[in-house]
Amino acid sequence: MQLSIRLPIYDPSKAPEDELNATWEMWDIVRSVCDYNPRLTLTLDLTPPLPTTLGVLSKWTAEPVQHIFLPASTFIANTKGYPVLPKGTQSFVRQSMAHRPIIIMSDVRSGTHSKGGESAYSQYIRHLEKSSPVVQAALKAGTVENFAQGYQDYLQAPLQPLMDNLQSITYQTFERDPVKYRNYEEAIYNALVEWPASDRIVICVAGAGRGPLVARSLLAIQRSRRPAFVYAVEKNPNAFVTLQNRQEMEWGSGVQLIYGDMRSIEIPEQADILVSELLGSFGDNELSPECLDGAMRFLKADGISIPCSYTAHLAPLQSSKLFNETRMNKDPSKSAETPYVVMFQNVDILSADGGGLGGRCGPQTQECWEFEHPRKDGVVDDRGLPITNSHNTRSAKLTFHIPHAGVLHGLAGYFEAVLYKGVGLSIHPQHKDRVSKDMLSWFPLFFPFKDPLYLPSNSELQVSIWRLTNERQVWYEWYAESFLPVFSAPLPGGEDHKTPTSSHDPFFASTTTHVAVPSPLIDAVDSSFSPVSGGEEGRKEDEGVREKACAGAVKIGQTLLHNPGGRSSWIGL
Amino acid sequence: MQLSIRLPIYDPSKAPEDELNATWEMWDIVRSVCDYNPRLTLTLDLTPPLPTTLGVLSKWTAEPVQHIFLPASTFIANTKGYPVLPKGTQSFVRQSMAHRPIIIMSDVRSGTHSKGGESAYSQYIRHLEKSSPVVQAALKAGTVENFAQGYQDYLQAPLQPLMDNLQSITYQTFERDPVKYRNYEEAIYNALVEWPASDRIVICVAGAGRGPLVARSLLAIQRSRRPAFVYAVEKNPNAFVTLQNRQEMEWGSGVQLIYGDMRSIEIPEQADILVSELLGSFGDNELSPECLDGAMRFLKADGISIPCSYTAHLAPLQSSKLFNETRMNKDPSKSAETPYVVMFQNVDILSADGGGLGGRCGPQTQECWEFEHPRKDGVVDDRGLPITNSHNTRSAKLTFHIPHAGVLHGLAGYFEAVLYKGVGLSIHPQHKDRVSKDMLSWFPLFFPFKDPLYLPSNSELQVSIWRLTNERQVWYEWYAESFLPVFSAPLPGGEDHKTPTSSHDPFFASTTTHVAVPSPLIDAVDSSFSPVSGGEEGRKEDEGVREKACAGAVKIGQTLLHNPGGRSSWIGL
Repeated sequence: MQLSIRLPIYDPSKAPEDELNATWEMWDIVRSVCDYNPRLTLTLDLTPPLPTTLGVLSKWTAEPVQHIFLPASTFIANTKGYPVLPKGTQSFVRQSMAHRPIIIMSDVRSGTHSKGGESAYSQYIRHLEKSSPVVQAALKAGTVENFAQGYQDYLQAPLQPLMDNLQSITYQTFERDPVKYRNYEEAIYNALVEWPASDRIVICVAGAGRGPLVARSLLAIQRSRRPAFVYAVEKNPNAFVTLQNRQEMEWGSGVQLIYGDMRSIEIPEQADILVSELLGSFGDNELSPECLDGAMRFLKADGISIPCSYTAHLAPLQSSKLFNETRMNKDPSKSAETPYVVMFQNVDILSADGGGLGGRCGPQTQECWEFEHPRKDGVVDDRGLPITNSHNTRSAKLTFHIPHAGVLHGLAGYFEAVLYKGVGLSIHPQHKDRVSKDMLSWFPLFFPFKDPLYLPSNSELQVSIWRLTNERQVWYEWYAESFLPVFSAPLPGGEDHKTPTSSHDPFFASTTTHVAVPSPLIDAVDSSFSPVSGGEEGRKEDEGVREKACAGAVKIGQTLLHNPGGRSSWIGL
Repeated sequence: MQLSIRLPIYDPSKAPEDELNATWEMWDIVRSVCDYNPRLTLTLDLTPPLPTTLGVLSKWTAEPVQHIFLPASTFIANTKGYPVLPKGTQSFVRQSMAHRPIIIMSDVRSGTHSKGGESAYSQYIRHLEKSSPVVQAALKAGTVENFAQGYQDYLQAPLQPLMDNLQSITYQTFERDPVKYRNYEEAIYNALVEWPASDRIVICVAGAGRGPLVARSLLAIQRSRRPAFVYAVEKNPNAFVTLQNRQEMEWGSGVQLIYGDMRSIEIPEQADILVSELLGSFGDNELSPECLDGAMRFLKADGISIPCSYTAHLAPLQSSKLFNETRMNKDPSKSAETPYVVMFQNVDILSADGGGLGGRCGPQTQECWEFEHPRKDGVVDDRGLPITNSHNTRSAKLTFHIPHAGVLHGLAGYFEAVLYKGVGLSIHPQHKDRVSKDMLSWFPLFFPFKDPLYLPSNSELQVSIWRLTNERQVWYEWYAESFLPVFSAPLPGGEDHKTPTSSHDPFFASTTTHVAVPSPLIDAVDSSFSPVSGGEEGRKEDEGVREKACAGAVKIGQTLLHNPGGRSSWIGL
């Protein structure tokens, strides 16, 4: 049995502060009380006109919307008298097509619109589907949406790149990425042209796989007209066979192959440029820092690493789909402590840029930490290898502004890398189209939370995350706390007032001494307080006032610490 | 390995609003991050002087305080120069003795106090232990504390009174209760004396067990000098043998024994008084309503049921001990959905009387529902039995005021019963000493929550609980939501102001239009706003102001629905 609950997208009869969230709050209680049963779905009723605050609509993308209910009364007549949807509804229905809902139409025989009759409504909906950007992107070769068909919201266990050897098919999939290797070639070219045309330049490809970076290095050498030589290091014996074939058939004497682990082998001479492709969805999560620590011995003191740096980024997300996928695993407690590679679809990012108490919240997606190569602070033994791995531990505490009530189910993890001088790779949702549009090789990382954490409108979420290590493993731990800001203005007299603890009426006696901002019930308006449009001067002027006006934030909730000591998930060294 | 964390009871260096909770908040994060590991305990450091708000001290009783750290500097000198503790600390240490902490003293050789030397400190602590009310009560025969030795915080699975027959030892334990049967005798006596001295009165004891209520009925008959006859119904064959012996040896012809289930047998004549002892810790949780429905056929239309009514009561509680006991079970998910009988010790009740938004919160312990016998609304078949059990379903939604931040781990369940006219039985913490002091037969019921729910200071907790039934089972379901009140005062102009959703700066623009109460960070003062001391007039005057001043409450969290459909726990009919 399947049960679908029909709910209006919002409740116009409620007070303005409540209306936008009222029906979602209702749904949230029903599905929580039903323990997220996957047989319980939503039928979104578009009878009331859409709200003007579109930010609240996006949360429905994280819910199991199986049907959309569209009565004829929601349609308006176009100039020719045919039924069409108002602009906002059009766009909402187009976006919803990503989730392939069943559209239920009603009253289409009532003759509400003069032209086209009964079939005009369904023809129009079919037109919206065809013109939906998501549907179009999925049909177009070369897009991530097309590449990811069938992988949406599917939890992929992360790779164990050092412990396991990749399969040939995996190499083949990743080699198809048109953007990644183009950018690598560009970065290598940019590096090469910095040398005088006469110098012999040594390139070392650390982790050559089946050879794509070797081929791109050779193309960059050709374009740059520099005399250069390439060493290619690879530990996977199967991939090494392919390398040997390619050297014989394609590359010839400009390339020397070296078999072995970059952390233990030696190469005949030090390199000017070290090229590697060891990055994971979260940057360092496939042990690029540790591998490159081992390979830095091959690089001259003033040599260049490509990539030269990379950063890890997080954003809080809501998704009943991913929450259920995580629980469906045979060992749910381990499964909820494992980061997965996921192509997000049925997901809503809960955070918005800036805002929060005293403007202390960062952007929608926030940077956790950075790794640079070559390291500047390295302590190494006489073979050039680091003595411990403690320099590769990291930690971050990030504060996110949550404008609209939602439920935290996990964190979205992204990376950005600087390959060399202005050429990079990025899956950061706000930067990727600028840096590496249509790059296919990485889906985001998903850090699940075991139990959903309810977050009210205008709350703040503080996420703590650690990258930790022992002699054999690297793992992440994560944890979050929620806060609700409480404001109190300075006294007219000037000095801050301290409420005496002996007050007889703590709830009411000091209303004269505290002034608050609007109720946290009132949703933030999406367009407001953007750090871009607001300008820096305006913000600085406000800061003094703001600091005085802040009483603090009340802690309202917390999650468990996930994966303590790497008990459920880790990457082997 | 055991790890004990030494923490001061509060942090005097913090701002007044934060100081009372600061160290507990710290502990709460540490133990949550350590997933309530039972090897992690607390060492309470009494170096800073105790805070004046004693309410915050009680929360430590719900924590695993294994040691108390007492430096010589905490002691003051009495008039003779011997070290003693200040009054508040004395009383705190006396209360803490219930948990048998190890007292660690330091600096006792420094000569801080002129008299008694090193041993004076430990002699004084031993004196506090001996004079601790809890320790004294445990030593005194006849007290609940003495009776419950070894049962503190031990989870007892509830009885299945209809499906299983009680063992003789169980009867024996309960028959030892000096208070319960005295009150029953008094209630029967009060009922008997309402009849004219000449009438023949018929008493039916429904569920006679090994006969205590039969014996008390005979004593009441004797005292009242009424001609009365007793029918004793019992379904347990082992208990019935005891009844037969007692009739032969003690009772004689004034009693007739009837073997069988009160829901199906017939008795020779209808009774004037129906006496039963079917109550559980939560009143109806051992199916008294259903059993008495079956037995009501025996009662004349104007007959009396003893008990004539009973109510179920709840209060929210914190207890890391009970949380861990629940999880230690072999099937933790079932275990967290089962109500247990528990003698509370390492437990703190989180709620306080009244308070909350618009004074809408009820008292510390709140009534859920009532059952009355005989029923006034009964629809019965031609045998006098109810057609369905739906009239015995109940539901309640209770709102509790939480003055000090804490963690919800479960609900404490209690009952009160009116036996007859002013004679009752009660384990309600605020009433029991008045109604039935030193009654031993019932420990409270504990409804656990699967996951801890953090509650900030001055928050509100809304508890929903249901008593549900099908043809074979009765069960409870429970659920809670947390809220934080947000206040906004009416405009000086009079009309309430609605913040337009198009505001450009939702966090700051309308500070002029809203006036708030003090930050929820500030703890409520315990003595304030008591409905008793405040008086009714004062409260009524405030109500108008209060209603206008309320903006609403922000939802901040929720629990799972526990035991839906009776999947984990139920009582068989």
